[in-house]
Amino acid sequence: MQTSFTLSTHGQGLYEFTRDVAAWVRSGDDPRSGLLTLFIRHTSASLVIQENTDPEVRTDLSAFFQRLVPPATDATMGYLKHTLEGPDDMPAHIKAALLPVSLSIPVLDGHMRLGTWQGIYLFEHRDAPKRRDVIAHLSR
Amino acid sequence: MQTSFTLSTHGQGLYEFTRDVAAWVRSGDDPRSGLLTLFIRHTSASLVIQENTDPEVRTDLSAFFQRLVPPATDATMGYLKHTLEGPDDMPAHIKAALLPVSLSIPVLDGHMRLGTWQGIYLFEHRDAPKRRDVIAHLSR
Amino acid sequence: MQTSFTLSTHGQGLYEFTRDVAAWVRSGDDPRSGLLTLFIRHTSASLVIQENTDPEVRTDLSAFFQRLVPPATDATMGYLKHTLEGPDDMPAHIKAALLPVSLSIPVLDGHMRLGTWQGIYLFEHRDAPKRRDVIAHLSR
Repeated sequence: MQTSFTLSTHGQGLYEFTRDVAAWVRSGDDPRSGLLTLFIRHTSASLVIQENTDPEVRTDLSAFFQRLVPPATDATMGYLKHTLEGPDDMPAHIKAALLPVSLSIPVLDGHMRLGTWQGIYLFEHRDAPKRRDVIAHLSR
Repeated sequence: MQTSFTLSTHGQGLYEFTRDVAAWVRSGDDPRSGLLTLFIRHTSASLVIQENTDPEVRTDLSAFFQRLVPPATDATMGYLKHTLEGPDDMPAHIKAALLPVSLSIPVLDGHMRLGTWQGIYLFEHRDAPKRRDVIAHLSR
Repeated sequence: MQTSFTLSTHGQGLYEFTRDVAAWVRSGDDPRSGLLTLFIRHTSASLVIQENTDPEVRTDLSAFFQRLVPPATDATMGYLKHTLEGPDDMPAHIKAALLPVSLSIPVLDGHMRLGTWQGIYLFEHRDAPKRRDVIAHLSR
């Protein structure tokens, strides 16, 4: 059983969509146990599971990755060659390599077995507004 | 078929539990082929597959990540805002984003198809002792 | 349904094998929907999904990871202890922790649901020529 989620992003940062995923998993034929896989069809955005309570965690995460992989205009990034699509483009590909393209989450009785503090996020690495496709697959 | 493993950790570092996982996979109804998924229900610890022979590999791995993401008290980390839960807390969330929350391992005839030098580890990112839950799902 | 792919590498960098995987998925019994999992049986090479058009993206990716995790001979890496197997060995293990050991890709009607710009790559972290085994598992 598969579906897709489309998320609109407006700049770098984390966008939660845990509830959308949970609702779809619940709507299934409720297998006793199953496995949910999420897959993002892009090379400049990622999927992450992160702390879902304090928004400062997401702010700090974005800040860390901005420092780890600065824009191509940064003095330390002068070695980059793929820069035609803007200073945020190649750093976005690097972050998409460092962070997950797919997530696998066990399901029991129609519920994802996330921990109390875990939420599902799309991590956008581009500055311009984007529409992002995430495929969900639920298997027994 | 699902189960969970509880691991007790006492500070940052890698904790192997390959044997526990292998025993559970073997105890199953031995599908000709299957897929094992491990999922950690926390945002401050990770799952990794790493070299299982020389303990210095784990020491070096921990040392690298301590340098890549130093404690919040480090001069370079002054931009962090989520610091109320201690100097190791936000760095733990960052490491949990960088390192896997789930692992998928093919199974054949009751055995995980790990390479000779591969072991399964929980990578603890917090200093205080913790109990960590890992869900295992085995599908055909 | 499982198979394995053997890839020969000749030094660090990204090696695409999307076509081999696509051909194998297509040769299956064409489930309406399924899940492909790829797993690399090594701790010094990784699997990544990356931009498949401009080769400079791969050059830049390699360059970034060479800077993030320099050889053990680099002045900043003096803390490494596991150095007997060469200056590229422990950095290879670190990169293998940072980058995926497994990838999960939804399949529909015999085709992987990759995005337009996504290709599947083995990311080799060692300098010497290697033969690398990747297991593929296709489930419904």
